[in-house]
Amino acid sequence: MTDGYADIREAAANASQAIAEAGLVLLAFGNASAVDRSRGVFAIKPSGIPCATVRPEQCVVVAIEDGAIVAGELRPSSDEPTHRLLYQRLPGVGGVVHTHSAYATGWAQAGRAIPCLGTTHADHFRGEVPVTRALTDAEIDSDYEWNTGLVIAELYGAGGLDPHEAPGVLVRSHGPFVWGDDAAEAAVHAEAVETLARMASITLAVDPAVAPLGGRLTTRHFDRKHGANAYYGQRTEVRG
Amino acid sequence: MTDGYADIREAAANASQAIAEAGLVLLAFGNASAVDRSRGVFAIKPSGIPCATVRPEQCVVVAIEDGAIVAGELRPSSDEPTHRLLYQRLPGVGGVVHTHSAYATGWAQAGRAIPCLGTTHADHFRGEVPVTRALTDAEIDSDYEWNTGLVIAELYGAGGLDPHEAPGVLVRSHGPFVWGDDAAEAAVHAEAVETLARMASITLAVDPAVAPLGGRLTTRHFDRKHGANAYYGQRTEVRG
Amino acid sequence: MTDGYADIREAAANASQAIAEAGLVLLAFGNASAVDRSRGVFAIKPSGIPCATVRPEQCVVVAIEDGAIVAGELRPSSDEPTHRLLYQRLPGVGGVVHTHSAYATGWAQAGRAIPCLGTTHADHFRGEVPVTRALTDAEIDSDYEWNTGLVIAELYGAGGLDPHEAPGVLVRSHGPFVWGDDAAEAAVHAEAVETLARMASITLAVDPAVAPLGGRLTTRHFDRKHGANAYYGQRTEVRG
Amino acid sequence: MTDGYADIREAAANASQAIAEAGLVLLAFGNASAVDRSRGVFAIKPSGIPCATVRPEQCVVVAIEDGAIVAGELRPSSDEPTHRLLYQRLPGVGGVVHTHSAYATGWAQAGRAIPCLGTTHADHFRGEVPVTRALTDAEIDSDYEWNTGLVIAELYGAGGLDPHEAPGVLVRSHGPFVWGDDAAEAAVHAEAVETLARMASITLAVDPAVAPLGGRLTTRHFDRKHGANAYYGQRTEVRG
Repeated sequence: MTDGYADIREAAANASQAIAEAGLVLLAFGNASAVDRSRGVFAIKPSGIPCATVRPEQCVVVAIEDGAIVAGELRPSSDEPTHRLLYQRLPGVGGVVHTHSAYATGWAQAGRAIPCLGTTHADHFRGEVPVTRALTDAEIDSDYEWNTGLVIAELYGAGGLDPHEAPGVLVRSHGPFVWGDDAAEAAVHAEAVETLARMASITLAVDPAVAPLGGRLTTRHFDRKHGANAYYGQRTEVRG
Repeated sequence: MTDGYADIREAAANASQAIAEAGLVLLAFGNASAVDRSRGVFAIKPSGIPCATVRPEQCVVVAIEDGAIVAGELRPSSDEPTHRLLYQRLPGVGGVVHTHSAYATGWAQAGRAIPCLGTTHADHFRGEVPVTRALTDAEIDSDYEWNTGLVIAELYGAGGLDPHEAPGVLVRSHGPFVWGDDAAEAAVHAEAVETLARMASITLAVDPAVAPLGGRLTTRHFDRKHGANAYYGQRTEVRG
Repeated sequence: MTDGYADIREAAANASQAIAEAGLVLLAFGNASAVDRSRGVFAIKPSGIPCATVRPEQCVVVAIEDGAIVAGELRPSSDEPTHRLLYQRLPGVGGVVHTHSAYATGWAQAGRAIPCLGTTHADHFRGEVPVTRALTDAEIDSDYEWNTGLVIAELYGAGGLDPHEAPGVLVRSHGPFVWGDDAAEAAVHAEAVETLARMASITLAVDPAVAPLGGRLTTRHFDRKHGANAYYGQRTEVRG
Repeated sequence: MTDGYADIREAAANASQAIAEAGLVLLAFGNASAVDRSRGVFAIKPSGIPCATVRPEQCVVVAIEDGAIVAGELRPSSDEPTHRLLYQRLPGVGGVVHTHSAYATGWAQAGRAIPCLGTTHADHFRGEVPVTRALTDAEIDSDYEWNTGLVIAELYGAGGLDPHEAPGVLVRSHGPFVWGDDAAEAAVHAEAVETLARMASITLAVDPAVAPLGGRLTTRHFDRKHGANAYYGQRTEVRG
């Protein structure tokens, strides 16, 4: 592959494999993509190829603007229009992952946002993992996958959310779409969403009336790992 | 094996192994069969042999019409009459799988059909995973396994269901019987039924009053993968 | 080992390993024993040695009558008196297994017998998995492990149960003690009790008011695998 | 490493790996430390390095008194001040482990102590696994990790608990901090807390109104494994 798409194809394939290894891919549901904004394209897993074994050269390169296939022999994931819309509308998103992981999908089926109940959650999301509105009949009947992206995107920007602070959503009755600065981070966030959903289920069973975490502790944990004052890991010279 | 049954014996053994690898075989419960309608026979796992290690030549070849053993040294699965009845009554079924996988069995014990709560479900079943009626005392006391097949089959055809659109049922107080175009697909559907049961349990815990998915979205997803307008995978030239 | 205890020591070690491999041994809790009634002794896992790695020659040989150590360098499991009492009181028991497997222990902590809710259960127990009464303060303060055996044994014989039809119990607030014709079968029954407890938990969450299985179906399934008319497996010439 | 810290660095690394192997490390959350009280220092996992692969020489050696880094190239875990405070305030603690294991975290998010419901629990804790009070806004805004240690420590000593009898707590809305005589025991206790939380969740689902274990049985089991009259394992000559 000397066409210059090797990086994003490898990133898409690696993220696909990462979600399979993390146990997030049930019944072959799952796909990942990685964007190259400077060239206006993203690479996405092909349809029907298992996440665990997809190879970089199988990933399909698609134009962000119109979905034209720029490179690749196979058909892209049937969810390609959802990924494309997210790259169009959500600034700063470098990779997108979709799974039907069990707990996140269970919450999506209940049509309920995952409340921020603890610091595990606040380390990844500044607030709840949101859930989209139901699609209208017209949105289901035509351009379904594109409209799935639309109901996600309308929560952001004017919708009130910041894609960096809520790096994923539950698509109602469907499952999670999750992103990150790159595809590798998107895969980590997909694992986080599944973990947060599972922990929230455990907590609800212990106390069905549990209240969400206060804003102070949410902020403390989110900012411990994100932004200028982060002090987790070996990335900066600052020490907490 | 030059008797011409090698294909269905291999298919039955492979499907038996597939359900074991998928974690659906608890306590040695599980069996699979594959049919050759042109010859009027099916191959089925022998009784008491572990799914994980069954070999094709151990599978027993049985006549669809009367259960006569056509080939094989061992006794067939004790559920052989249930498989046989399904091949007799359900057109288009190429393979049958039975498990006692934990969540599907849990729902079967509750005597409750698994409602279609999301797109994961709608991708596999056009509507709920049905549950059979209770057997009468007479049906239990005589020809029990045959009658187990009868209460499944009476849900289909005149009973209202299409075996292609509801490729499996929960036998009340027992567990899932599942099928497909061939034994390999039956094994995939067995994994799907277990996954759908588990996701439904997670959803019920979050919202005990959750409503089933609307027909529009169910149809959209089922038809995305099945029938003339399917556009998932690499199987057709159509692109969604 | 030319002392004639090699068989029961190997059986005890194998059953210990089997429960570890089946995921029933949490936090190092678990032990197994095997009896040789002709010699009046049983071999039991030593205390504090992991089930997964115990070797036959480490197993301690104990007299059924008085608990005297007949062979072995190590101290027997602290639950040895419970095993001993079961060999004294329950005819036909060839091996005993104790675990703290998660679901069975969860039900034991709730002090609730596991109702027979389906055929998976009826294939192993003719009726519920019983739970013992609470021990009195005096029974706790002195000869605790012996008294644990007493409250199990009082459920059998004059207590109404048959050790072959109910091959294990939940010791209230503690966990399962399970047996079989030999130690290998005891280990299988321990896995069955854990599976039945888990399935019952899944069923209760779907329908908290579920009724137990009728006696007719319970009998049908129990007798399909046990006794003179059994027709499961390759063990007899009878065919169902 | 000829600086004399090899022992505690190895203990901290081994305990970090142990919690990873036990499945307690979700989303990279987890850290462990080991103390050398004679030298006034402890070794702790560095921040952002995975538990599963951390090497002894990567562990950071910190002064108990003031948190000064005595040895090590990397930044210590961001939770270092919590560990340090526990070494200052809790006598006899030789190692500390922190995880976000799923069930323990689920209970911490519910703000509910894990009641002692059975002998599995009583073998590790003489009574409930306590939960800390909520931090005040001021405690969150400044010296957050140090204050996390403070709300733990205030439960002990004058707070009523003995660190040997309750070798770990749930930090409210956060997750478990657990300790032991050394780091290896702390890791075992971390696995125990997760197991006890999971078993308690299973029990609550079977009987939401279950009562805690009586003191007599709690005492019996705790003392069977701890203190002068312990008779479990091969450690003493006493036999139960």
